[in-house]
Amino acid sequence: MNAEAAALDADDPLAHHRAAFVGTDTPLVYFDGNSLGRPPRATAERLARFVTEEWGGRLIRGWDEAWMQLPFAIGDRIGALALGAASGQTVIGDSTTVLLYKLLRAALDAQTAADPRRVEIVVGRDDFPTDRYLVEGIAAERGARVVWVEVDTSRGVDADLLRDAVGPRTAVVLLSHVSYRSGFLADGAVLTAIAHDAGALVLWDLCHSAGSVPVALDDWGADLAVGCTYKYLNGGPGAPAFAYVATRHQGGLTQPVQGWMGAADVFSMGPVYRPAAGMRRFLSGTPPVLAMLAMQDTLDLLEDAGIAAVREKSVALTEFAVRVADGILAPLGVRLASPRDPAERGGHLTLSHPAMRRVTARLWEGDVIPDYRDPHGLRIGLSPLSTSFTETLVGLHAVADAVRAES
Amino acid sequence: MNAEAAALDADDPLAHHRAAFVGTDTPLVYFDGNSLGRPPRATAERLARFVTEEWGGRLIRGWDEAWMQLPFAIGDRIGALALGAASGQTVIGDSTTVLLYKLLRAALDAQTAADPRRVEIVVGRDDFPTDRYLVEGIAAERGARVVWVEVDTSRGVDADLLRDAVGPRTAVVLLSHVSYRSGFLADGAVLTAIAHDAGALVLWDLCHSAGSVPVALDDWGADLAVGCTYKYLNGGPGAPAFAYVATRHQGGLTQPVQGWMGAADVFSMGPVYRPAAGMRRFLSGTPPVLAMLAMQDTLDLLEDAGIAAVREKSVALTEFAVRVADGILAPLGVRLASPRDPAERGGHLTLSHPAMRRVTARLWEGDVIPDYRDPHGLRIGLSPLSTSFTETLVGLHAVADAVRAES
Repeated sequence: MNAEAAALDADDPLAHHRAAFVGTDTPLVYFDGNSLGRPPRATAERLARFVTEEWGGRLIRGWDEAWMQLPFAIGDRIGALALGAASGQTVIGDSTTVLLYKLLRAALDAQTAADPRRVEIVVGRDDFPTDRYLVEGIAAERGARVVWVEVDTSRGVDADLLRDAVGPRTAVVLLSHVSYRSGFLADGAVLTAIAHDAGALVLWDLCHSAGSVPVALDDWGADLAVGCTYKYLNGGPGAPAFAYVATRHQGGLTQPVQGWMGAADVFSMGPVYRPAAGMRRFLSGTPPVLAMLAMQDTLDLLEDAGIAAVREKSVALTEFAVRVADGILAPLGVRLASPRDPAERGGHLTLSHPAMRRVTARLWEGDVIPDYRDPHGLRIGLSPLSTSFTETLVGLHAVADAVRAES
Repeated sequence: MNAEAAALDADDPLAHHRAAFVGTDTPLVYFDGNSLGRPPRATAERLARFVTEEWGGRLIRGWDEAWMQLPFAIGDRIGALALGAASGQTVIGDSTTVLLYKLLRAALDAQTAADPRRVEIVVGRDDFPTDRYLVEGIAAERGARVVWVEVDTSRGVDADLLRDAVGPRTAVVLLSHVSYRSGFLADGAVLTAIAHDAGALVLWDLCHSAGSVPVALDDWGADLAVGCTYKYLNGGPGAPAFAYVATRHQGGLTQPVQGWMGAADVFSMGPVYRPAAGMRRFLSGTPPVLAMLAMQDTLDLLEDAGIAAVREKSVALTEFAVRVADGILAPLGVRLASPRDPAERGGHLTLSHPAMRRVTARLWEGDVIPDYRDPHGLRIGLSPLSTSFTETLVGLHAVADAVRAES
């Protein structure tokens, strides 16, 4: 397959972007860009220049001149590029967890106020822990009820499962667009429609799609979304998340963490909290300016490439990985724990084998870096702009060697 | 007073630290280090090196190797240096607003559960908007009641005011150690004791003290605290805040934003949320690693200087500013809207005059940067390590010129 990998790299119209990332000139194989994306080379200089020129040079004046608008400006860029969201609906805020909490609370409270029967939150039993833990906590504090959707760990919540879970008591549905474990890619339009037909609101978790899989929030008629910026958007460890609220909902939803940045007039510092119009009401504290700078370098690259081409390469990478796995890993007892159909798969896939925890440790020692997820899953994330086909092939051969050594 | 300022600078044992900050070699006068501290020169290089070597070089491995511990390691450094907090009680988390929300909810819920009569939150009517807005929102959602302490805007909540406000219905008292407007410095030990005598818990807002005024949380017997890192700790615009929870309370308090980082076993990703032991239960989402790096440069400097010497210089700076203001501003009708006694004053002071909004705009045009707070307040923040006596004198002369021009 070496010749095939080389040919795919030679034909890859996005291949030149790989050199824009730190470390792509080393032999290390990185299969975890879906957990923490590599930094673009431009980012070190961007941050250093910010410290000296903007923070150090403009000091507090930077807030009026640029920084107060930055959460909205970067939010709009992400919205236009990666979310299919018209401007004024996306903002950079707190961590993914805190933003999910705020939007889920806002949605649940509004739904229950409008119809006291609507006290159920629907969520997948296999969703990312934060999503499940949050729902559990919110249900307990608000007297709501969790409806758990039972999911095959190699898939995710699909139309049939969702249809059975929603009804006249459903307030909100929290859905992962791409499942963190299996890479299952949900049909955004269809699932949104199913939730709406039941009178529920949908909150999309876009952590594993933003920047690799096209999202069309406005076209789906989606209500709310939250997503991560340190995966395919390469914002750096712990970079703040984005939140989307459809324009039609912004006036009717209020979130519980009432801070000065969400108030109608930030600097009047008046006696009573009145939420701002528009997306600012979903902010709470001082925007994390320094932490939202790095992602702009990847936005530059993604805008240059276009999200359709990024998705095309992403599919080509996962298709190639599946073919290689079928050829050299299946004979060792490794099972694909992700959808086979690329239309149902995001930018990563999971390979299952009883020895995968030890295999992961062995691979790390050899500078091949996937991650491990229970049960027995080796997760292979193939960040489209920074991963080559040859890197993918080399890494999967290392997986085969490690499985042989650990079986 | 030029000679006096020069002599004070010549005798200042911390004077050499000023050169460690970006921009102190320019004529700009910076009176707003209590709002956004200047960056140390070392920070640009620290961030650039982090991007290339740690994030880019270690990639996802950085979490295991260092970053998971960073919120606790930096928290402990701040605790030891600036808060009088033994290790294991301070952590870097979300924004000030979000951390205040989480701790206030945790404290209120625990107090009400232990004694259903305790449904009151005591807060100053003149406290920072976020504090007031949060309390208002939490009271509404939890069916609690706000007891507003009426405060003279040139002071803050003191022992007499607090004694009148607390009682058998008080659940939590939220107190500013240094008032954001007046610079009033509360007596931490006395106020904590008053709250405790009434059976209440105290949550200290340390935003305007951490790094300039010594705090002794453990000695006071304080329960909870939150503080800002982008003011006197120079963490950069929007840097994440710290939270303190006294060891004796950590097992009994749970906060509502249940995310994966607060769970007992982060990577088991189990079916049910169980809060971690210790301070990690107060975290929610992925720690903001990139955003918590910069403050370490100021911690290096503060540890070298020692917080006692920092406070000594801070008092000398504000005493000098008061003397200059008495000499050249009082005759123009400018009034000191801060305590005269340095034992009751933090690192900033407020000068009041009906023209101060226009005065502020004029000063900014001339590269003298204070900030403005209603009503009629020019706030002069004197960050001890980066501000000189001469800079203070030059700035106050500019204030006098501007008041004359705008009156």
